[in-house]
Amino acid sequence: MAKQLSGAGLRGQVAGKTALSTVGVSGSGLTYRGYDVKDLAASCQFEEVAYLILKGKLPTQSELDEYKALLRSMRGLPQALKDVLERIPKDAHPMDVLRTGCSMLGNLEMENDFSEQQQATDRMLACFPSIICYWYRFTHDGVRIDVETDDDSIGGHFLHMLHGEKPRELHEQVMHVSLILYAEHEFNASTFTARVCASTLSDMHSCVTGAIGSLRGPLHGGANEAAMEMIEGFTSADDAEEKMMAMLARKDKIMGFGHAIYSESDPRNEIIKGWSEKLAADVGDEVLYPVSVRCEEVMWREKKLFCNADFFHASAYNFMGIPTKLFTPIFVMSRLTGWAAHVMEQRADNRIIRPSAEYTGEDIRDVPPMSARS
Amino acid sequence: MAKQLSGAGLRGQVAGKTALSTVGVSGSGLTYRGYDVKDLAASCQFEEVAYLILKGKLPTQSELDEYKALLRSMRGLPQALKDVLERIPKDAHPMDVLRTGCSMLGNLEMENDFSEQQQATDRMLACFPSIICYWYRFTHDGVRIDVETDDDSIGGHFLHMLHGEKPRELHEQVMHVSLILYAEHEFNASTFTARVCASTLSDMHSCVTGAIGSLRGPLHGGANEAAMEMIEGFTSADDAEEKMMAMLARKDKIMGFGHAIYSESDPRNEIIKGWSEKLAADVGDEVLYPVSVRCEEVMWREKKLFCNADFFHASAYNFMGIPTKLFTPIFVMSRLTGWAAHVMEQRADNRIIRPSAEYTGEDIRDVPPMSARS
Repeated sequence: MAKQLSGAGLRGQVAGKTALSTVGVSGSGLTYRGYDVKDLAASCQFEEVAYLILKGKLPTQSELDEYKALLRSMRGLPQALKDVLERIPKDAHPMDVLRTGCSMLGNLEMENDFSEQQQATDRMLACFPSIICYWYRFTHDGVRIDVETDDDSIGGHFLHMLHGEKPRELHEQVMHVSLILYAEHEFNASTFTARVCASTLSDMHSCVTGAIGSLRGPLHGGANEAAMEMIEGFTSADDAEEKMMAMLARKDKIMGFGHAIYSESDPRNEIIKGWSEKLAADVGDEVLYPVSVRCEEVMWREKKLFCNADFFHASAYNFMGIPTKLFTPIFVMSRLTGWAAHVMEQRADNRIIRPSAEYTGEDIRDVPPMSARS
Repeated sequence: MAKQLSGAGLRGQVAGKTALSTVGVSGSGLTYRGYDVKDLAASCQFEEVAYLILKGKLPTQSELDEYKALLRSMRGLPQALKDVLERIPKDAHPMDVLRTGCSMLGNLEMENDFSEQQQATDRMLACFPSIICYWYRFTHDGVRIDVETDDDSIGGHFLHMLHGEKPRELHEQVMHVSLILYAEHEFNASTFTARVCASTLSDMHSCVTGAIGSLRGPLHGGANEAAMEMIEGFTSADDAEEKMMAMLARKDKIMGFGHAIYSESDPRNEIIKGWSEKLAADVGDEVLYPVSVRCEEVMWREKKLFCNADFFHASAYNFMGIPTKLFTPIFVMSRLTGWAAHVMEQRADNRIIRPSAEYTGEDIRDVPPMSARS
């Protein structure tokens, strides 16, 4: 007999082992390979953290320099992939664009065996920003951009292609922080998707393609986009409070608050909130940041719900001129790190993930002849 | 504290509910919505079983006629999708082609909300054969085929496009049986991938794209291809026995035998074996079928391992002139039914699938300054 579990959605059930991260172990913390994400976000570049997550150690300066140079060299897109991106309509879902771009890349540069897993991952880390920006600029601005920029970082590369000019240092720095905060989060649904796929010994591109599809779901990625859509409808802090109170009275779903695992607070919130405040001061914002702060106050006062990683990401990205529809693709550019590391971990100690189900259907019955059906 | 489960790979653990099928409940049986797969394969067409799995009841004659007419009307491919398929190299993995074709379809014909789930599914059932054959014939034969044939069934449509002529009745009949046998199998890894993705409330194309990626893995789909590669290396039954004994002595992995859930036999084997025998007689085969039978005898005698659904599928498909590399894509054309039905079921009573992990990594530690790393 299959064992009955208590919670739906496998909540609180151990589905495997990982050495990559802890989520909420002390009630609110997040660690990557033993390092507190707050410390990493305070002192590291994203590429440094990607190296840590994928290879198990923080790089020395020369290892980091070498790794970043390697990633810089892998930004170009094959013509066949550009052709595919040009055939995806402007009104497509940007996550579908990335899912298709990743899948197409797997056709053109197949991971032939697991010895190529790091290379396949590095290639995706380097070129996912190229994929999303190439499609976005072609379909929205009618230009075929050069994706092989010489920007120092992945975040800088993304902003440069998006805006057509070198990003400011502050913005590149915020991208480092943002990408670090989203890089890894244990057995969340998209990562678990990647691990289930990996457990069949499928290739890296299949695992990542599947994970993108899961992150696309409104219960998973996309909360920062929903938060943006809400806060941009508020004209002032007082207006935000009034409208939120009405939303709460109507029991509307409000995105960007609370978390499936964290119970007290999301450790990533205070970090991105601090950077959102800096960006607000930098652009002279007097609406979006005060609105966001008021939302946080109201939700805590009324519902004891805290901001999760997504809420202040909305204003931060907005201050950097990033279109709302590209928020979740940035999540992909970052979480790809965790997905790939989980795939590697699954492969190293694998058993196919094949659970059982509780059957709730019809008892065994005879097939009626066609004439007896209704 | 997260609950510790006994088995790796969630084996024997209930991860959700389903009314769609039972696997091995009586030790060897397989039922779809209460009907024994043997009965369904003996008297139904694949479209009839797809209707059953997706809509919960066997269709009347007029319902079946209407459903088949609907599917026939949905075989065409948008030009943008053809353009994409033409850019996928000849030596790509056919499962990567389907994965990319499905993902691209999601860009062109997005499932906007769940009210469109049946329509999105029907469209994929109708056009997946078109996708794989269009790519195959373009890259292998240099022709742009007309995918809008008037064949009665999905299997007939596939064979017609593949061979460029109307299939014989026997072959169309075997395709019905084959597609029925592979249509649904509870919480196998690809179906579970689709359900994890669905649990984020993502779209149908994301769920199916992810499932294709999982089925691609050699521990899941692909066993019939591996079986074919083995048996076509044997020149006679005696040759097969000699070489298999040597493989067993070397502890080589032999595909197409045994099963993660079935312990006594795979109920699908005797059905497809019977059809393989008929096809062998039809084509005058004196090698492949006797070789296959001997393999079955040797594996049972030596290892008490029985043929699973995949083993006699190899010879059956081969007798119909289907290239080995298209065996797993046929699996997709069929299992799509189960995947989509599971997505619908997950959506109807959803909680995001987000298990926990056992942490095996480093204790909490300080981030060393760059200069202190090695």
